[in-house]
This record gives sequence, C-alpha cells and structure tokens, in this order.
Amino acid sequence: MPELATQLARFVCKSEWRDVPAAIKNESKRATLNWLGCALGGCRDETVMRLWAAIQDFTGPPQATLLGRGTNTDALTAALVNAVSSNVLDFDDTHLATVVHPTAVVAPALLALAEHRHSSGTEFLHALALGIETACRIGNAVGPAHYENGWHISGSCGVFGAAVAAGKLLGLNAQRMNWAIGIAATSASGLRLQLGSMAKCHNLGNAARSGLQAALLAAQGFTSSERALEAPRGFLRVLADAPDGGAVTRGLGARWEILTLAYKPYPCGVVIHPVIDACLDLRAQHGMAAADVTRVDVTVNPLAIKLCGNPAPRNELEAKLSLAHSAAVALVDGAAGVAQYRDARVADPAVIVLREKIVLIADPAIGKEQARVRITLANGRTHELFVEHARGSSGRPLSDAELEAKFRGLAAEALAPAQIDRALNICRSLDTCAEVCELARAVAG
Amino acid sequence: MPELATQLARFVCKSEWRDVPAAIKNESKRATLNWLGCALGGCRDETVMRLWAAIQDFTGPPQATLLGRGTNTDALTAALVNAVSSNVLDFDDTHLATVVHPTAVVAPALLALAEHRHSSGTEFLHALALGIETACRIGNAVGPAHYENGWHISGSCGVFGAAVAAGKLLGLNAQRMNWAIGIAATSASGLRLQLGSMAKCHNLGNAARSGLQAALLAAQGFTSSERALEAPRGFLRVLADAPDGGAVTRGLGARWEILTLAYKPYPCGVVIHPVIDACLDLRAQHGMAAADVTRVDVTVNPLAIKLCGNPAPRNELEAKLSLAHSAAVALVDGAAGVAQYRDARVADPAVIVLREKIVLIADPAIGKEQARVRITLANGRTHELFVEHARGSSGRPLSDAELEAKFRGLAAEALAPAQIDRALNICRSLDTCAEVCELARAVAG
Repeated sequence: MPELATQLARFVCKSEWRDVPAAIKNESKRATLNWLGCALGGCRDETVMRLWAAIQDFTGPPQATLLGRGTNTDALTAALVNAVSSNVLDFDDTHLATVVHPTAVVAPALLALAEHRHSSGTEFLHALALGIETACRIGNAVGPAHYENGWHISGSCGVFGAAVAAGKLLGLNAQRMNWAIGIAATSASGLRLQLGSMAKCHNLGNAARSGLQAALLAAQGFTSSERALEAPRGFLRVLADAPDGGAVTRGLGARWEILTLAYKPYPCGVVIHPVIDACLDLRAQHGMAAADVTRVDVTVNPLAIKLCGNPAPRNELEAKLSLAHSAAVALVDGAAGVAQYRDARVADPAVIVLREKIVLIADPAIGKEQARVRITLANGRTHELFVEHARGSSGRPLSDAELEAKFRGLAAEALAPAQIDRALNICRSLDTCAEVCELARAVAG
Repeated sequence: MPELATQLARFVCKSEWRDVPAAIKNESKRATLNWLGCALGGCRDETVMRLWAAIQDFTGPPQATLLGRGTNTDALTAALVNAVSSNVLDFDDTHLATVVHPTAVVAPALLALAEHRHSSGTEFLHALALGIETACRIGNAVGPAHYENGWHISGSCGVFGAAVAAGKLLGLNAQRMNWAIGIAATSASGLRLQLGSMAKCHNLGNAARSGLQAALLAAQGFTSSERALEAPRGFLRVLADAPDGGAVTRGLGARWEILTLAYKPYPCGVVIHPVIDACLDLRAQHGMAAADVTRVDVTVNPLAIKLCGNPAPRNELEAKLSLAHSAAVALVDGAAGVAQYRDARVADPAVIVLREKIVLIADPAIGKEQARVRITLANGRTHELFVEHARGSSGRPLSDAELEAKFRGLAAEALAPAQIDRALNICRSLDTCAEVCELARAVAG
C-alpha cells in the first residue's frame, strides 16, 4: 500500500470543479438538501439540547450557524452540534456498501468553515463531494470487519471526510493535506456499542469537529506522519483486520461513491421501508379505515425479521426498529415520518391495537428491498401489494420531488413555511450562490 | 468482566480525601509539581505555537490559564493546549508498566475545570489521584499488545483519566460517572506512529479535551452505554487483543498506581539516564575538561543500544534518542536539560568531537537502569563509575529536592525567578490552598 495518503491528498488538491462530472455536481446538491432537512428535523432533539447545555459556556465567537436553533457559535462547535443534529433522527444518507453516513459528518464541518470563510456555493459543493468520496473510500478500505469488530464507521471513517473537505476549502497544498489526513487518522474514534444511547450521535459530532480541527492544524504547518493510512502501524492496519488499502485510491476521479448514496424516505431501519411503501400505497388506493383492518400479513426477507421483529416496542428508539409499529402507524396515519415514531405515537391505543394484528412471515425468496403486504378487512375482503424496489433503494432512488417533500416535512420542525421556500430555492441553485452564508442564514431558524 | 465501568464509577464517587493514604496525597503533589514544570518548559515550543495559531480564532471565554503563555482561554481549549505543552519535551511522568504518561493528560483537563469552578487544592489533588489511577489501570487492562499494535496509550487510555478526574470535580453521581467513562471510551483515539511528528502530543491534548468534554456531557445527562469498557464490543475488546478487564478494579483503593510513577531527571530516552548520571558524576568528581577526554567507554544493556545507538543525531528529536549525544553533552556542559538537546547543541562542534569518542558496549549482564562509564584522558589516566540505579528509576526515585530543581530549570523558560518561588510555595502547600486558581495565576507567565 504505497503512499495512500499522498495519492489521496494529490487527487483532492488537484481536483477542479469544472472537471467534476455533472452527475456528481448534482448529487452533491441532493446530498446537501437531504442533509439540511435531517439537521433541521433533529435540531431540537433532547440529545442536541443536552449537548448544547454541556458545552455552551465554553464556546467561541459567532462564526457559524447552529442549524434551526436561531443562534451562532464558533465553527468547531457548530461542526460538532450540527453533526449531532444531522444524525439524531437516523434519517440521514447512507453509503450502503459500508453503512457510513458521510454527509452528516462532512457537511457540518464544511458549512461551519464555509460560513467563517465566506466561501461560495460551488466551493462548498466541490469540497463536499471530495469529503464524501474520502469517507466512503476509507470505509471501503477498512472493510466489513471494521464495523463488525465494533467500530462506528461513520465516526471512525467520517473524520477523514471532514478533514479533506475542510482542507480543500482552506486550499491546503498536497503536503498539508497529507498532514490533515494523518491528524484525522490519529483522531479517529467511535464505538458501535453506543447505538441506542446519545453517545451514538456524538461519534459523528466528534468526527466532524476533529476533522475540521485536523485541517486547521495542518494549515498552520502542524505535522503528522505522512503514511498514517498505510504504514504498518497506520490507521488501516490498527483499526481493520485485513484492510484493502487500494480501495482508497482505485479509480479515483473515474468512479464516485457519492452516486451510491441512499436517502431514506422514512426515519427507521432500512429493511422496514418496503413494508411502509406497501402499507401507504394500499391505504391510498383503497382508503380503508384502520379500525376495519383485522389482519395484516407482512412477508419479508428473514433478515428484516431478525433485525426488526420486535412486535411491541416501548419507545421511539425501539419503534424505529419495529416492522409491526411501522406497518401499524402507516395504516393509521397514512404517514411514516418523524412524528410517527415519537413516544406518544408508540403508546397510542389505536396504533397498539393494529400492531397486534400484524403477522410477520419470513421468506428467503423475498429480497431485502422487497415486501409483500396483504390486508384483511372486517368485511372479509383482502388487498395485497408486492413492492419490488423500496423507495430510496438503489432500484428506486428518491426523486428530486421526493427529496424536496422530505426536506419540507423535516424543516417544518424548525422553520416557517416562507423560510422553507427560501431555503429550497437557495439549495436548488447552490452552484450559483456567491456566499454559502446565504444558505446558512436561510436555515438558521 | 461484569460491570467494570459501574464498579470504577462507584469507587471514584465514594472516595473521600480523608480516606486517601498519606503517601498517595503526597505523590499527587509531586506529580503536580513535575507536571507543571514540564508544561512551563514546553509552553513555547513550536508545536504549541502552531496549535494555538490554528485554533485561537475559535476559542471561548477566558476561564482557564494557558500555562506560561500569559493568556487565558476556555477550559476545553486550555485542556488541549496545556496537555500538548506538558508532553512536548518528553519530560513528563511515566507509568512504567504501561508507558502511559498520565499526568500530562489528566492534570490539564482538571486544572482548567478547577479554575473555572474555583475548586480547592485538595479537590484538585484528590481528583488528580483518581484520574491517574483510572488511566493507569485501564492501561494495565489493555495490556502490552495495545501499545505494540499501534495505539498511543497515553491518548487512548489517558482520556479515561481526564474524564474521571473532571467527573469527580463536577460531583457526578455513579450513574453519570459511568456515562462519562462510556463517552470517554467512544472518544478514545491516538496512533503510536505519530511519535516523531507534532501529532504525537496532539494525541494527549485530544485526550485531555475529550475527557473533560465527556464529563461535562455526562453532567447534563447525556447518555452512554453503561458497559462501554467490558461489553463484547466495548473499549477493551475493540482496542485490545486479550484484555485483562479485572485489572481495572482489582485492589481498587488498596493498591495505588500513582506510587509507581517515574519522573525523568533528563528529557531523553529513559535507557540513557544511567549513562548521564555516570558522566555528570565523573565530571563533578574529577573536574576534567571535555577537551582532555580521548575516549569514553559506555557499557549498557543491549536494549539501550538497540533503542538509542544513533552515534550522529541530526536534530533535537534524534538527539533525545542518542546515548552518544547525551554522554557527550553531559561531559561538555555538566548538564543534560532541555537546552542540551536543542538543535544548536546537537550541531555544536565541541559536542560533535566528543560524540565521536564515545564507544558503546552492549552487556546483557548490565540492567536497563544501570551503566558503566570509563573515561580515558589525554594524560592516560582513566576514571570509571558504575551506576546501580539511575536517578528517577524505581530503585532511586527523584527526591523532593531533585523535583524542585527540575521544576526550577523548566519553569525558567516561562517565569521570572520570583514567580518560580511563589509557584513552588503554592505547590508545597497545595492541600491547604483554598482556590487552585491561585496556583494557576502563579504559573500563568
């Protein structure tokens, strides 16, 4: 594995916006819109409130926006807090090959720095694409054993994305970009066992903050090992069993990982999504009342039941991993958004009654993106639907209109309708925006 | 490994200063004095200058002292910067069983918080002892493979010490102390390959800052896995090959690791120390001029030559790992302090001439704390000395007077003589000091 950090640094430093393929430019905008929605939807979560209560006395000058919270803080703190907001709803994007959530780490670090430096929309989109690419490629290099062994890969690999994106915005030369990568490597952290506690999102927040700091340090000539990825005691070999270092650089610039990002239409386990699709479509087509439903047969891949078979979740966190709750609430509410997983909906008698009528059936012939749902009504009639590709899966990516609808729903947690329209307009034309501060102001709340 | 974090948290929370053995109280004061000297000696190093240049625009209100730098900043930043200052000279204390440098991480986090909270001297000393204990015990638990596999143990285990010490000062209950330990676990980072670059000290700085932040978060009810140490995918099993979890709690309160800390008399590799002792003592006894020396036979354990056999170092970093430079400069200058390893001394012709007269001889019968030095003069006379226990080793710990002399030498880099006297006086009676801010002001520079 010769000089991975050097090769990566050179690629990032040499990259010019005009040479980036149009599809990448477009996906960078879509990733930004999806991310902003998630950050706005999560910005008043209890996790974010406690984080802010803990650190606000220690923060610096108002350089960057705390998304949706109506206040500004120093750029390093903004990176931390906004990354936690972005991930707290489990609604942000996913690089399915690695389960890295890249944008929730990279974009907060980058936006905070871009505000501080008054960078343009294209500078932001360009650095974002490069940062996402970096995080996902290092995720590819550590391989599945990294996550299986206990590393929360969005933190441990996300930090590189934040460092490279911030380094690009700072205009680091290849030597200093290499140091930024090395400082990120020695800052990499995050245990997967934190899933289910507030410290889960903190892994992403810490990665965003540390990545930004790594770039700032490198910009001042703060040195690092220059072989921090590939050395015998470098990041890849210390944190992975059998790393594939070549995955960091193979096809750089020719193949872009950002094109494989998946955006969730529902804030819950991804294997539940085809079931929700089916329930929402059946309800819309046939207009049945939840009270008339006597039985719901849900046939899915066995993995879905293994991961999300909980028939009686007790709270939001458990409900997000429950096929039964998701199917029930989709049929009762005709929706499966953030509101449908709040504790109040989890405890709602109408939802509980329907949850008990859900019958889960495992069928290995059904793919992980597929589901069959059959609803039996009190009058004996049945309605059935087979979903071939879940919304948001690679076979059926979310359209721009669906992403905008998702943004609208989430942003409503923090913004007034006129502010939402304004933010959407800026996002649509972010590549012609002279100062990304304009976008930040629009989503300040 | 049942409930390690819970047991550790309970011990720390229940500990009362009046029940701490007198020897521990005393060692906590000695560790403080040694640490403050190192931080003052290192506070103007290029590493610290570049760190500060990178982050100063992002820092918060002046809550805590930047040691020796004549300025204050927010407590989290002070923890970071002061920890880097503390370790940059490689002169801070060492837990020899693990090579953890505990005080350089724990004390900066603690002093910054203690200033912010106006804590007393005993509160500081008590929390320091508990933090050092925590860092060293977790270091014992991960075992030697942790370091050998590439983790910079002062960072990866030091973070727990900072979290527990800060948590004690904050008065966390056992539940929240457990969370602080868990957040520290998920923030643990630091690669050993950074030794030789500026990012080495950053590992300790990051640990100090992250540990303090972990305690602040836990104090606000920010939750974590409660089995972050011992769970199947917890810190110990993810970052160590065959951890001995029991080492975290075995004999807690009965046996104290702080009693095994070693304080360096010279800012260089520890295997060089007996050689310096011999050279300084021979020079003092016989008053020979360096120009009269024709040959110096240095007989040491083979490990010393393996680690520090470089006959012609080119700079400070290499000189700190050179037996030949250390012997030569000790004979020329009659000292082996920070000044003797600066690039200027490394390039000095008088030192270079003598370096070339040093003959290294490996002898497995000689212990790692021992050395035999024979000096041959131009007139044919020889002087020989055998050092049984190097100064600072467990067989010959530094006396209080030697620690004070070390402090005086280092503090002179940042403080005027009257300030040094004042700081020493406060340190000597730190257990009766009403506000540790008094000490911080004395070493502000």
